[in-house]
This record gives sequence, C-alpha cells and structure tokens, in this order.
Amino acid sequence: MTTDTAGPVRAAGPPGSGDGQEAAEILAAARTYVDPELRGAVDSLPRSLRRVARYHFGWEHADGTPAEGNAGKAIRPALVLAAVRALGGDPAGAVRAAAAVELTHNFTLLHDDVMDRDTTRRHRPTAWTVFGDADAILVGDALQALAQRLLAEDPHPGAPAAAARLARCVVELCAGQHADCAMERRGPDEVTLAECLATAEAKTGALLGCACALGALYAGAGPEVVDALDGFGREAGLAFQLIDDVIGIWGDPGHTGKPAGADLVARKKSLPVVAALASGTPAAVELAGLYSGPLGESGDELERAARAVERAGGRDWATVHAADRMSRAIGQLARAVPDPEAAGGLLALAEFVTRRTQ
Amino acid sequence: MTTDTAGPVRAAGPPGSGDGQEAAEILAAARTYVDPELRGAVDSLPRSLRRVARYHFGWEHADGTPAEGNAGKAIRPALVLAAVRALGGDPAGAVRAAAAVELTHNFTLLHDDVMDRDTTRRHRPTAWTVFGDADAILVGDALQALAQRLLAEDPHPGAPAAAARLARCVVELCAGQHADCAMERRGPDEVTLAECLATAEAKTGALLGCACALGALYAGAGPEVVDALDGFGREAGLAFQLIDDVIGIWGDPGHTGKPAGADLVARKKSLPVVAALASGTPAAVELAGLYSGPLGESGDELERAARAVERAGGRDWATVHAADRMSRAIGQLARAVPDPEAAGGLLALAEFVTRRTQ
Repeated sequence: MTTDTAGPVRAAGPPGSGDGQEAAEILAAARTYVDPELRGAVDSLPRSLRRVARYHFGWEHADGTPAEGNAGKAIRPALVLAAVRALGGDPAGAVRAAAAVELTHNFTLLHDDVMDRDTTRRHRPTAWTVFGDADAILVGDALQALAQRLLAEDPHPGAPAAAARLARCVVELCAGQHADCAMERRGPDEVTLAECLATAEAKTGALLGCACALGALYAGAGPEVVDALDGFGREAGLAFQLIDDVIGIWGDPGHTGKPAGADLVARKKSLPVVAALASGTPAAVELAGLYSGPLGESGDELERAARAVERAGGRDWATVHAADRMSRAIGQLARAVPDPEAAGGLLALAEFVTRRTQ
Repeated sequence: MTTDTAGPVRAAGPPGSGDGQEAAEILAAARTYVDPELRGAVDSLPRSLRRVARYHFGWEHADGTPAEGNAGKAIRPALVLAAVRALGGDPAGAVRAAAAVELTHNFTLLHDDVMDRDTTRRHRPTAWTVFGDADAILVGDALQALAQRLLAEDPHPGAPAAAARLARCVVELCAGQHADCAMERRGPDEVTLAECLATAEAKTGALLGCACALGALYAGAGPEVVDALDGFGREAGLAFQLIDDVIGIWGDPGHTGKPAGADLVARKKSLPVVAALASGTPAAVELAGLYSGPLGESGDELERAARAVERAGGRDWATVHAADRMSRAIGQLARAVPDPEAAGGLLALAEFVTRRTQ
C-alpha cells in the first residue's frame, strides 16, 4: 500500500475493507485537487454567466456574496483520478478530465432541474428558481462547452478519445432524462421494470461509467480495459440508484439524504415501486390504487404505500438487485485491474456511493 | 478562376462582382456536401431524440413522416468550406468541422426558441411547441454534444484547436443570448447602442466568425490568419444583423424575409430602434412614447413608429453602419487572403448574407 498522501487520490485499503473513512479521504483529496481547475474554468465565463454558475456550485449566495461551497461530493472526479491511479497512470495529468466530468454532471443538473421543476438542490433553491429558466439553460449550455474546451485544450494523448467518449455519454444522459420525463407522464402500470432500469443506467450509470473510462484513457489503457472500467462504473451506478430509491421510501439510516417517504409523496416511479407494481400481488393492486391519487405527506396513506411496496417485494428486490449489480461491478473491476491493492481506491468509492460504508 | 465544379465550394467570381448566383451555387454545393455528414450525426442519436432533431431540421413532419427538408441556407458550413478553399486547403477534409458548426447553430436555435417563446422557425412551429420544452432542451444539448463528438473523432490535425475554438464560441453565444434576454426585460431607454452592438456581435457575429476561423484552422493557417478570418465573419455577421434589423422594420425588397413592421409589433429593441432612441431628437421622444405600450399590427401606430425611427436617423445609421462593417469585413479578408480571386467565395457569401446580392 502506497503512503503517497500528497497525491490527489490515495490508494485505499484492501478491497472490501468497508472503511468508509478511506473513501471520504479519497473524495476530499480529489476535491482539493480538482477544485482549482473547476473554479478556473467557471471563472473564465463572462460575468453574466459566471454568477449563475458560481451560485449553482455553492460558491456564492444569490446576491453574489461568497458562500461556504457545497458543490457536492465530487464522486465523479474522484472516480476519474482513482481509475488513473488504479491503472498506474499519473492522476496529476488527468485533473482537466476530472474537472470536465464534473462540469458535465453539473450541466445536466442545471437542465434537469428546469425540466423536472425541482426547487431544491444540495439544500438550496435551484438555479432556475433564483435566476429564471433562461439563465439556468444558458449556464448549463456553457458548462457543457467548458467541459469540452478543457479536453480540447488538454495536450494529454488521452484527451481526444476522452472528449469523444464524454460527448457520446452526454447523448446517453439526454436520452436517459428524456425517458425519465416520458415515464413520469405515464401511468404507474404503464412502466416496465426493464425500462426503469434502462433509464437509471442512462441517467446515472452512464456518467459514472464514463468517469472511470476517462481515467482509463488517461492511463493509456486499451479498449478492453476502458470498457471494463466503464462497466464497473455503470454497475456501481445502478447499485447506487437502487439503494437511493430504497432510501427515498424508507429513509437513510445515516440521515444524510432525503427524508423517508419523499419519493412516495412525489409518486415517483422509482425502482422498488415499479418492481412492486409488476409483482402481480394483492399488495401491487393496493399500491396502484394509492398511486392513482395524491398521498398526504404525513399519515396513513404514506405508511400504507411504503408497506405495500415492501409486501409486494419491492424492497427486497431492490436490495438484492443492488447487491447483484455491485458484484457485477466488482467483476468488471477485477477484469480491468486484477491487482486488488491497485483496485482498492475504486472499490472504496463504489462502496461509499452505494452506502455500504458511510 | 478554377473550374473545379465537383468540389464542395466553387471559387466565386472577382470580388464585388455582386453575382448572387455565385453565392447561391456555393451554398447549394455546401449543403450537398455537408448534408450526409449532418444526417449521419443526427441519425446516430437514440430514437427518442432523433425524432425531435429530424423535425427541427425539417427532414420530418411532427408525425415522423418524411418532409421536404428546409434546414436553412447552411451559410455557416459554407463559410467553413469557403475559408478552407480560400487558404488553399482541401474542403473535403473539413466536412466534419462544417457539420459541427451547423449542429452548434441548430443547438442554439432550439434553446433560444424555448427561452424567447418563439413559435415559428423556418415557416414551421418550433420544436418546443410541438414536443415540449424538455425535448427541445434535451435535443439541443445532444446536438451540442454531437458537434463536439464530430471534432473529437476527426483525425484532422486542425480538429483539436477547432474543438477548443468552437467551445469558446458557444460560451460567447450563451453570453449573447443572456444579454439579449436581459435587454428585452428592460425599458427601451435603458439600453445603450454599444450594448446592443455587443449583443449582436456575440449572438450572430461570433458563430459566423468561428465558422471562418475553423476553415482557416483546417487549412493549417497560423494564428494571425485565423483571427483575421474570424474578424471577417464577425464583421460580416454584424452587417447582416444591421440589415436584418432594417428589414424587420421596413420589409425585405425581395420579400424573402419577415414582413415589414414585424420587429415593431414585437417592440424589439433592434439596432435601428435603439439608435433612434439614443438620437436625442423629437422623433426619439415620439418613438419612446409609442414603444411604451403595445402597437397594433396594422394601422397608424406601426406606420408612425417606422417613420419616427427613420426621422430620428435610425434607418440611415443602420445602413451606413452596415456598410462600414462590411468594409471592415473586407479589410480583414484581404489581410487573411490577399489574393482577390482566392477570397472571392468568402466575399460572395458575405455579400449574400448582407443582401447586397440576392
């Protein structure tokens, strides 16, 4: 195990160590490393756009005064850097790629919030609620352009392939968001579990996979390793989504995420709900009935809906399926990085996002 | 004068020949050349996004049946190819760059229409009116990604610099649209002519300049020539905008554009209007009064407003200023391409878009 703590991504402990502290340190190190690149890119924007971007990243309040940044965990940049390191590359050379992935992620958040009319992001009002739809759309557009500019200007030999891969990933993210919007407009019984999984893969898995793949490209890996690391990120992303959906119904044991029942109040067609509705059980019929009208935020209906999902097998299915995805992720990781010690950082991050460790 | 009519961009006649037929032929040739690349890129999109994109480009009706394409004049791809040819490069090698510029242009059209709530584009309902805001935003995002993908996958040595330049241009386009939206929210007397010109340069000049600059990069030109061609496109773009604004008030002599008075009905703060309002004349006071409330689509008020702009000097200013911009454009062109014969194609296109020839 390396003791190089000065680098952006410390090698983690042995695989499966479940040491959440390890992941937290990797994430903190990645943030420290990528933050200047990210801020530099955002600060290169014209003033009118920069203001909205700096608000979105949590670096400024709406009035332009400095804020204690809460720009998110930076899991995607950490995956880029951890993938480079896992394959023996130099993470210092991949900082622009890591920033490009984070800019891309934030461009999609800005646009998704407009489309979904979501009013809260990272415990603050979303950009469109503060600055209007046009500003949120334009700053999202500009962040996508910044991401591509960073890669186009990067002399690293991995940069052109990374730029192409990131652009293809954006198309997949758009298709995923499109499918998600379309599902929300349909009745709960008109959505299949396969569709729901495909949407989660495109919306969430694709960019986590792309982050890992970009790290592999920057480490000079061949196509098979790049694809295996993409698969690792995708499968871990799906495991994350499944567990996030469980938390959206039954709450987060660590109380770090959404309150229990949040997804039920919004009548979200989340994975456990769709699995439950597809179960053909009496509980599925009860759930469909409850989902046909608004559910009160407190009280019996919410409780009944959560119990119905559970009785219909939605919770167990999601938990088992998440474990299955995680084991597939580990399989892909082993294919790309056979040395468990080298793979430790990526594994720690995957375990962290799937809340097997906190 | 070359007789190579098989190439994508024919060399045009001597500069200032005013032969609009020449430009029309260059445009038609560019469309023929770029269309397969453009359709290939759009058809690579997932089905859900492809449908909206094909509608936007005029290749399909809203129900998915094929339509006679009216994807616009393709002036920007023609500028890319004409710039390559003017500098002795091979236009055949720059088709992806030309398609990337056209994809970028169309991404901004899709998003601008959402923000401006414009309901008509190229004589058809805009994409957001047919498919909703979310689809128009997502397909715009995907077209931006496609543009960057084409450049990232292009092995041409000019591609990385072109990708970086195009990304920087997108940021400028976003800033221009932001300024335009902000101006629309302000009172007519709160907008300065300098702001109005800066906005037109960012919204319209930047991408025309970028198209020419990309052509220069693909011809292997040095930074000075690239910048001079960028300047040529920018200045021609401003000349175009000034003349387009004159047409928006007094109509198009060729009846090919908007009806007379269209910009007045919308109370647009177009360049002749802002110049008139800033003139300090009694006609400016009259115009400000008329612009303070809605103007009827037919009748006296519209007529009076047009006359007030004219009496306040707005029409003359715009016409003279357009000629000035055009002569600056020609100066930049001469700097980049001293041989008038080689520069002929670019000049013919600039004269075409500024309606000095039709």
